[in-house]
Amino acid sequence: MSEDNSVFIGRKPAMNYVLAVVTQFNKGSKSVIVKARGKSISRAVDVVEIVRKRFINNLDIVDISIGTESLTLDNKNVNVSSMEITLTKKPGDPEPQQEAVHEPEPAMEPEEPMQPADMPDEKIE
Amino acid sequence: MSEDNSVFIGRKPAMNYVLAVVTQFNKGSKSVIVKARGKSISRAVDVVEIVRKRFINNLDIVDISIGTESLTLDNKNVNVSSMEITLTKKPGDPEPQQEAVHEPEPAMEPEEPMQPADMPDEKIE
Repeated sequence: MSEDNSVFIGRKPAMNYVLAVVTQFNKGSKSVIVKARGKSISRAVDVVEIVRKRFINNLDIVDISIGTESLTLDNKNVNVSSMEITLTKKPGDPEPQQEAVHEPEPAMEPEEPMQPADMPDEKIE
Repeated sequence: MSEDNSVFIGRKPAMNYVLAVVTQFNKGSKSVIVKARGKSISRAVDVVEIVRKRFINNLDIVDISIGTESLTLDNKNVNVSSMEITLTKKPGDPEPQQEAVHEPEPAMEPEEPMQPADMPDEKIE
């Protein structure tokens, strides 16, 4: 259960993960941890910035940590950078924009179930 | 002069920027700020992790901040994510590995002058 509020960033469009984060908060999570490895780290920053600017204004970035993970890939050890961004909703504020999508997203089905805790589907480099 | 200890991460190989950071500390800087935008953010994390693990062990990550910058590109406003990582050397510790390159880097000239403060040469997306 402790990993329920994590959103792993993979190689899908950033907006998929934005909705995953917003959904986590709408389900009542007090905090959400956005996790990424390798090249997806840039996308994780995009996701957090889009959530803050467009969807949930009363959001605090309480922690950003980076590290290195050792993975075994084709019998070779590879080191890959990782990042975790912890977001918390400020208590007591109104949430007027929480469900409003400000720009049309024609390729996206808002009712499509999200997979907030899936592993990154990227190739580790 | 206040920007002298910044290293801007562009699209060159990470090891170029690793040496730029190490050079900054060797010149006597107490802290170095690693800055990146867009897709180079992932590379910035790689750079910091390589410096910490292989070159300067007594390094503190004192701050990581993320944000959004508005740029004008071809008369269009684009938003791009940005990140700054502030590194500080812990005082008083020995620095045994500071000048040791642990892995051969055949494509790199160690005596080549670094450009630690150049702007990212990437295409902003």
